[in-house]
Amino acid sequence: MRLVLEYDGARYHGFQRQAGRATIEEELLAGMERILQQKVKISYAGRTDAGVHARWQVINFHTTRDIDPHRFRWALNCVLPQDIVVKRAEIVALDFDARKNAREREYRYYILNRAYPSAFNQRCLLVTRTLDIEGMKEACGYLEGTHEFNSFCKLEEEGTDTVRNLYQCECRKEEDFVILIFRANSFLRHMVRSMVGTIMEVGLGKMAPTGVREILESRDRRRAGATAEARGLFLWDVRY
Amino acid sequence: MRLVLEYDGARYHGFQRQAGRATIEEELLAGMERILQQKVKISYAGRTDAGVHARWQVINFHTTRDIDPHRFRWALNCVLPQDIVVKRAEIVALDFDARKNAREREYRYYILNRAYPSAFNQRCLLVTRTLDIEGMKEACGYLEGTHEFNSFCKLEEEGTDTVRNLYQCECRKEEDFVILIFRANSFLRHMVRSMVGTIMEVGLGKMAPTGVREILESRDRRRAGATAEARGLFLWDVRY
Repeated sequence: MRLVLEYDGARYHGFQRQAGRATIEEELLAGMERILQQKVKISYAGRTDAGVHARWQVINFHTTRDIDPHRFRWALNCVLPQDIVVKRAEIVALDFDARKNAREREYRYYILNRAYPSAFNQRCLLVTRTLDIEGMKEACGYLEGTHEFNSFCKLEEEGTDTVRNLYQCECRKEEDFVILIFRANSFLRHMVRSMVGTIMEVGLGKMAPTGVREILESRDRRRAGATAEARGLFLWDVRY
Repeated sequence: MRLVLEYDGARYHGFQRQAGRATIEEELLAGMERILQQKVKISYAGRTDAGVHARWQVINFHTTRDIDPHRFRWALNCVLPQDIVVKRAEIVALDFDARKNAREREYRYYILNRAYPSAFNQRCLLVTRTLDIEGMKEACGYLEGTHEFNSFCKLEEEGTDTVRNLYQCECRKEEDFVILIFRANSFLRHMVRSMVGTIMEVGLGKMAPTGVREILESRDRRRAGATAEARGLFLWDVRY
């Protein structure tokens, strides 16, 4: 069966199960096993880090139980905590794999750019200085395309294949929000948040937009901006 | 000085101060007195009940301190809990009174009408059965205008003047939300939520739209629907 999930990651140490820590996977498996009365294993499209949210996370699992997907969604939403929700449940081919079959992932980063925070939405980064949107757009343009993304990933990833195809890297202004949109076949660890941190330096006038191109070409992680806080990041969509 | 506030009411026993209970007023006064280093009294436009939110609550107070409104907003947002935010601060005429001078108040009630809840938004009522929007719109039409609203208020209000002018009573569908909009010069206690509870009965097919007109004409509180949960209600706007 395939499930589409939405979750607020604030209370969790990321999606992936870790001993002794609250994770999305832990809550999900506990709920599923309570309903199915059998152990299950899941495969998931996007590994979200601690504090990262998902608007559209896709997972799949195999079960020998004959259960109606709509009833399963209903039951699971009754037992899950209110910050994790099942949006869809459907029967899929037995060889479907939520991670391996994903053709494209989209992440979005929300920046609230105004003088005061929001009482209703903590899932964004508050920046009170006016951001240079045009500079940020230019910086995004340099990141788009197929590159070695060594400068924009966790140091431990060095040595592995760091070539990724960033189909879209866009900066959009919507009311008081500045939204950064990233679409790629797949992402390196911390790749989105280190790109966000670097684009933010441009927005704050600490770096010229062309600086982003230089960092990309340097293939040196130490030159990129700080990894942006998790609170503004969403796994937005997964396409198959 | 006049302040415009936004707050998530979920954690509070309403706006008005009550001994031994967390209230918006309590938090606000504590923050203001910490910054001003003097006791203050406030007047506020809308008394929101326990669990009710505000997108636009207006308050005013007098102080002998010479303080810049922008700095005051900034400082107050630093000391307030994250579910209470000051959106605006401005110097106003000494005789301005946020409650007495308010010409019009607008409340909105948010119903999420789909098969599953939201992980991101608990400030709405989830209704999984499909609502009859046309019936709800018809019911709203009967409530609009100047009436004695005895049927739609707390019983303890009986005997007081219950005539109110409901300038607008509208039911709107926006994506998965059904939004009820109420504008009036002022409202009786529990008036919005008892109207919502009654309109919901129409939406769920438990009452004919014309039933709302009959309840209004009966001037009998016991005939109206149950008071709707506070979680979906917002003080949306105040006009002067």
